Amino acid sequence: MTTPILLTPGPLTTSDRTREAMLRDWGSWDSDFNAITGRIRKQILAIVHGEGTHECVPMQGSGTFSVEAAIGTMVPRDGHVLVPVNGAYCQRIARICRTMGRRLSTLNYPEDRIMQPADIDAALEQDKTITHVAVVHCETGTGVLNPLEAIAAVVARHGRGLIVDAMSSFGAIDIDARKIRFDAVVAASGKCLEGVPGMGFVIARREALAATEGNSQSLALDLHDQWQYMEKTTQWRFTPPTHVVAALDQALQQYMEEGGLAARGARYARNCQMLIDGMAALGVRSYLERSVQAPIIVTFHAPDDPHYDFKTFYQKVKARGYILYPGKLTEVETFRVGCIGHFGDAGIPGAVKVIAEVFTEMGVQAAACAA
Amino acid sequence: MTTPILLTPGPLTTSDRTREAMLRDWGSWDSDFNAITGRIRKQILAIVHGEGTHECVPMQGSGTFSVEAAIGTMVPRDGHVLVPVNGAYCQRIARICRTMGRRLSTLNYPEDRIMQPADIDAALEQDKTITHVAVVHCETGTGVLNPLEAIAAVVARHGRGLIVDAMSSFGAIDIDARKIRFDAVVAASGKCLEGVPGMGFVIARREALAATEGNSQSLALDLHDQWQYMEKTTQWRFTPPTHVVAALDQALQQYMEEGGLAARGARYARNCQMLIDGMAALGVRSYLERSVQAPIIVTFHAPDDPHYDFKTFYQKVKARGYILYPGKLTEVETFRVGCIGHFGDAGIPGAVKVIAEVFTEMGVQAAACAA
Ligand SMILES: Cc1ncc(COP(=O)(O)O)c(C=O)c1O
Ligand SMILES: Cc1ncc(COP(=O)(O)O)c(C=O)c1O
Repeated sequence: MTTPILLTPGPLTTSDRTREAMLRDWGSWDSDFNAITGRIRKQILAIVHGEGTHECVPMQGSGTFSVEAAIGTMVPRDGHVLVPVNGAYCQRIARICRTMGRRLSTLNYPEDRIMQPADIDAALEQDKTITHVAVVHCETGTGVLNPLEAIAAVVARHGRGLIVDAMSSFGAIDIDARKIRFDAVVAASGKCLEGVPGMGFVIARREALAATEGNSQSLALDLHDQWQYMEKTTQWRFTPPTHVVAALDQALQQYMEEGGLAARGARYARNCQMLIDGMAALGVRSYLERSVQAPIIVTFHAPDDPHYDFKTFYQKVKARGYILYPGKLTEVETFRVGCIGHFGDAGIPGAVKVIAEVFTEMGVQAAACAA
Repeated sequence: MTTPILLTPGPLTTSDRTREAMLRDWGSWDSDFNAITGRIRKQILAIVHGEGTHECVPMQGSGTFSVEAAIGTMVPRDGHVLVPVNGAYCQRIARICRTMGRRLSTLNYPEDRIMQPADIDAALEQDKTITHVAVVHCETGTGVLNPLEAIAAVVARHGRGLIVDAMSSFGAIDIDARKIRFDAVVAASGKCLEGVPGMGFVIARREALAATEGNSQSLALDLHDQWQYMEKTTQWRFTPPTHVVAALDQALQQYMEEGGLAARGARYARNCQMLIDGMAALGVRSYLERSVQAPIIVTFHAPDDPHYDFKTFYQKVKARGYILYPGKLTEVETFRVGCIGHFGDAGIPGAVKVIAEVFTEMGVQAAACAA
């Protein structure tokens, strides 16, 4: 069986070269390995133009571990976090705050709408106890792109801290630390950098990070401690996922060879356009308006046809070589298709063709969903 | 350059077959991948004979993440943990308790001594507020093997909970859940199971685990939540390190083909014996008495010779194909050599031969350290 193409927002399809970097073992104490760690930190920092002002601190675990590390380290125990919510990953940030016992306020939006900077402005104006705002850049639950630059400007004007979950956008949608003031931007290896999953990282404004000692109520997820130890020793505090780190190093080399963020972002944007157009031609309607759609993952309305069910659809598409993603909405039936990962220009048109075949085989009138 | 053999206690040398399992991508939502997760959980449970009574809950991150998850989930927020300390990893458990704000008492031992069950007995007798005892099985800081069975009997008699950090012993030194009562045994992928690093796991007594809802002050490290979600969906809550999981699956197959715990433990014991004998023949003295030495990692006294320094020694041995490990003791100068990992019977004698050559080249009188 050939490996299917993953049209999922991480883990995603990686290149052979990236996976082959995992074919050797590394001592985690050894200088050869620590050189890789140093290189990765530097290259990730360069993507946001944070050299000299920011720090890249890698963290073991999935992306959520790094989000929790950022919040638990950046927000003092008596801090107060404002979380605008327009999807599942925003809700997860709110849950992290609640679980850790950080004071929380939310601003709630429908899932097909972007966060409004003016609402955040009003909330910060009204409640001076809010110390931090935590937002998701691309809300992968739907694929909506929140207006990060405008939000950051509002938060900066109020002098509060900003924590950005940029998990699914980092490396493909520009975040320029010279123009956008943030305390922390969080992402992971297995998303738009096209590495394998197993580690995350936080890009922190050095001045903000330096003031966080003792905030964390977790040892494993203490970003300040991880940073200090790494600066002193060049090593990770606890065993790094050596093979995942080596793969990310290779993935970053390919990222630069491709042309960095501009090229990666353009490729994904092409994928996204082909996908939306191709599906529209089948009569499958995307959930979001085009103006708020990030070129990362697209949510589609499920066909409104009794012959359709997601499990069968998924299995049949998989049998033809493509892995799709279920929807994450509770009120509308949807499915999602990712635009990111290492697959050629044939990937998306190939998937659309297969989806058309499967609909025919299932007797699904796709056009029914555009009703 | 050929890859050096890692004589380090994880990451360690893995087999080609294990690493080659990382050559494909997996969708984390896909049933093929979830079958792997299910198989791993089952096989790990079988190693401790915990079928029907215990649960294996995998956790993203390094081993420390799983130790913290076990303590943070098993010990209620107003719990009280007794930590006998005879090395660096015991100290880490104590630090985790302090950072999380769990009440802590310690029993302190010199690093070349094992923990005494009688002391634990007395401490539990005297202080009825102690809810849990947390111990390290093989204290990798030195290589000492603590008397787990006797400790577990004492803790069980007092009706308290027992949490065991078996990171470096699991799979090689027997822990039988039918005979030893524990709440949690913690280990990781990249140790004696000979997988690659990037995930840990906790084997929990089901009854104890079921009572832990809401204990965790971390979302990422909430073992109860991870367990419940996995039971419901067969999936990990957050993106799993898919390639690391696939490698562990392959490593476990090889573990069983080799003959399971008995064979793995015997191989490491042979390595350990060859190592101690070979080094003794060079005049290099091991730090621990043989009776308390675990067959996992051996601490050696550094040669008491002005020509010796660890960095040079390490680099020269590495140039000849072996990666050693620095000592972790503060008062005596030592270095450590691991006995675990996928290398043939020639591995240890080869390393000893290289160490002899390097001593000669450095002009080190190895015998000086046996003075
Ligand atoms: C925006 C966003 N935040 C957080 C996460 C969580 O990452 P992980 O599943 O690696 O924990 C994801 C994963 O897709 C994401 O897209
Ligand atoms: C006994 C023990 N506990 C905990 C750990 C920590 O594991 P990690 O470095 O994977 O966090 C180790 C690592 O070697 C260990 O040997």
